[in-house]
Amino acid sequence: MSKQKVIIIGAGLSGSLLAIYLAKHGIECDVYEARGDMRSETVAAGRSINLALSNRGIAALKEVGLDEYMLAEAVPMFGRMIHATDGATKLLPYSGRTGEYINSVSRGGLNVALMNEAEKYDGVRFHFNRRCTDFDCATGAVRLDTGEILRGDTVIGTDGAGSVIRNAMFQTVERFSYSIKWLEHGYKELNIPPGDFGFRISDFGSEENRDSEGLFRLEKNALHIWARHSFMMIALPNFDGSFTCTLFLAHEGENSFAGLTDERSLLSFFETNFPDAIPLMPTLTEDFFANPTGNLGTVKCFPWNVGGRALLIGDAAHAVVPFYGQGMNCSFEDCRVLNRLIESHGPDWETIFGEFAMMRKPNADAIAEMAEENFYEMRDAVADPIFQRKRALETRLEHDFPAYFSKYSMVTFREDLPYAVARQKGNAQDEFLMRLCAEFEDIDQLSLYDVLQKLREYA
Amino acid sequence: MSKQKVIIIGAGLSGSLLAIYLAKHGIECDVYEARGDMRSETVAAGRSINLALSNRGIAALKEVGLDEYMLAEAVPMFGRMIHATDGATKLLPYSGRTGEYINSVSRGGLNVALMNEAEKYDGVRFHFNRRCTDFDCATGAVRLDTGEILRGDTVIGTDGAGSVIRNAMFQTVERFSYSIKWLEHGYKELNIPPGDFGFRISDFGSEENRDSEGLFRLEKNALHIWARHSFMMIALPNFDGSFTCTLFLAHEGENSFAGLTDERSLLSFFETNFPDAIPLMPTLTEDFFANPTGNLGTVKCFPWNVGGRALLIGDAAHAVVPFYGQGMNCSFEDCRVLNRLIESHGPDWETIFGEFAMMRKPNADAIAEMAEENFYEMRDAVADPIFQRKRALETRLEHDFPAYFSKYSMVTFREDLPYAVARQKGNAQDEFLMRLCAEFEDIDQLSLYDVLQKLREYA
Repeated sequence: MSKQKVIIIGAGLSGSLLAIYLAKHGIECDVYEARGDMRSETVAAGRSINLALSNRGIAALKEVGLDEYMLAEAVPMFGRMIHATDGATKLLPYSGRTGEYINSVSRGGLNVALMNEAEKYDGVRFHFNRRCTDFDCATGAVRLDTGEILRGDTVIGTDGAGSVIRNAMFQTVERFSYSIKWLEHGYKELNIPPGDFGFRISDFGSEENRDSEGLFRLEKNALHIWARHSFMMIALPNFDGSFTCTLFLAHEGENSFAGLTDERSLLSFFETNFPDAIPLMPTLTEDFFANPTGNLGTVKCFPWNVGGRALLIGDAAHAVVPFYGQGMNCSFEDCRVLNRLIESHGPDWETIFGEFAMMRKPNADAIAEMAEENFYEMRDAVADPIFQRKRALETRLEHDFPAYFSKYSMVTFREDLPYAVARQKGNAQDEFLMRLCAEFEDIDQLSLYDVLQKLREYA
Repeated sequence: MSKQKVIIIGAGLSGSLLAIYLAKHGIECDVYEARGDMRSETVAAGRSINLALSNRGIAALKEVGLDEYMLAEAVPMFGRMIHATDGATKLLPYSGRTGEYINSVSRGGLNVALMNEAEKYDGVRFHFNRRCTDFDCATGAVRLDTGEILRGDTVIGTDGAGSVIRNAMFQTVERFSYSIKWLEHGYKELNIPPGDFGFRISDFGSEENRDSEGLFRLEKNALHIWARHSFMMIALPNFDGSFTCTLFLAHEGENSFAGLTDERSLLSFFETNFPDAIPLMPTLTEDFFANPTGNLGTVKCFPWNVGGRALLIGDAAHAVVPFYGQGMNCSFEDCRVLNRLIESHGPDWETIFGEFAMMRKPNADAIAEMAEENFYEMRDAVADPIFQRKRALETRLEHDFPAYFSKYSMVTFREDLPYAVARQKGNAQDEFLMRLCAEFEDIDQLSLYDVLQKLREYA
């Protein structure tokens, strides 16, 4: 391959991983990041603190040699822990097979690890505090806020949901389809600090709940959900013993951020809806009024490339809402797929970008839709007895017949299966199983073998 | 009502009709139009030459007293005339009831009639060659290309699919959802001039084919369709004896505009696909290479208003593809609904706009989706024997049981039925009838009464 130089816009998770992949092909990368270097200064990322890393993302980290390192810092989550209003908890495992779980990782920690790894390669240079302000679709030139004009063999936009490269394409590419859709719900991050008075919880038997620094105040190895129909709170464990909570609530109307205007209304809302969480959140009021309320949106666009001059990947091409825990995993899969195409085609960027977009677009659309649908599943269905029976039945099926994969498992654990296939098959399965579980209140009456046969006919 | 002043951006069909409605409430209207006055100069509208006016649009024209006048200049179309490749034709009526048909009207003629009517009111002023360049969502001020800054009690954007008011909202309104989606197909307008050598066609018996100026070279009272699966041509009659043809074809790929580069490739394409049309189109080559190739897109957005300061209506809020013939009809319905809300609320613009958007958004989404779906019906299904049987069956049902309405009839002839209801009911009916017609090759075997009973259970 002739010596190529690629300009990457954005040093977030996708941009940093992409730089490693490209460097391994001997391609030079200049990565321009609007923010400062999070390794040497405090950077307001404006994004979630932790993330669920699962098989699609791990497959990419494996290819660049970072999976072992990262997973050492991850907290496995084996299932959803449902918190009822009366404080009762119930665990719904993510899979009936052993060894299938998702991992809570620190966004910042993973980003730093990826940048450090990328910088081991000679051809990779990160440039911080350099904001891309415009992209010229006709010439491929990138303009920075410093006035610099950059040119490379091609430009890859990994500049996230608010992508400047995408906006330039929207302004100038003929028939550029573009959609941004906001949920009525926003989110706010809150905190459960590590315990300091010695109690421990261990629903999971073998798992030790004491870790590097503190004691986990809730079951460590689960994603906690307080599902309250029109809203919900979740909590993911951090490596230091804390949990990061995220409250998802409508911006306006009944039970909304608009109604939580002071300590009194906030505490009354929590006492009514999350009474078991209050004693775990000593800084609830401070956190709530100090932290920003974020918006949740889905971005779709097409085409993703301007000939061989530019390509969008990750959130820049397809930002999704966080409810399937697949945003980062999907972006990492983008990098994997792009890497394979570079292997096949060499630096024929126009061919690579065209094929990439055609291959990935249906899958990006599928996960975007599943992520929206899962919002309703998480806040409504997980508290619904029929849904809980269905999940129990799926867990048993996966346990007794390991070749069976639930929709969730196909999306989360089957990095060999495109999202679009997982969605289509998964929806057909779900429809059948929900009908079955609505009919049978006691799933012990069902023969798992018969259910599996019917599922094969049906889905 | 205290004397109100409304600024309308755009003097197209919606803006001109809206001005009449507002003037009837004693509201002053200043209408700013980027183009010149089409009554005194030639204006490149960049839009189709004729349009299908049907019940929803007529209902609005009736309310402002223009229905009689317009319908005198309209050409009724009683059904779709399907042209097979071998030149054979077949008529599929739009309805089984008498008196239900759609009308081919001149866009320019209707626009002029609406402007003339609006100007009869003292409070209405049209300002041509005044392009709106920006709207300030915070203050409600409108900026024109002349540098003028305008203020009124409120601003209504009727500035079409490329709305400047909408773009200003997109830039500044938080959580403004916005989507523009382009079809792979574009369109080009072509022409069938009036006949000058005396032949006439009269499939419709009683209808006279000779009209004001010339002889119609095809059945006058039909919408002609040359459906060729991946593309199609249609033709609508004009009052002067000509037809305006529209060729819908992919931009790129097999059978596309990209492949029609010279007279030879054009004529070869027409000889293969539309041989019966060639003798009717003496200026085919000139028209094809002189006329622009247009794009077809769907625009969705929300919210449609900025408090009581601004509202989008018509294409500015919800541009649709032309395949259900409902773009103008839907926009006129917008004006009707807005008028009723003004009657209820007086000049409380914030209340009116909020209610308007909540009422109309589901219906605008429904017609947008039906218009896209109808593209596939028109180019594929109308040439499919099962579909043709289904239409024949529906026509008989409507004839024998006038209380039955097909999906097409609900959308087109039932101005009392919201689009969203027509879509939901219509889809359920269609699914049942298509299954039935796939099963029965001879619909004479079916008891219409039994079919109707089953339809009532099903849909």
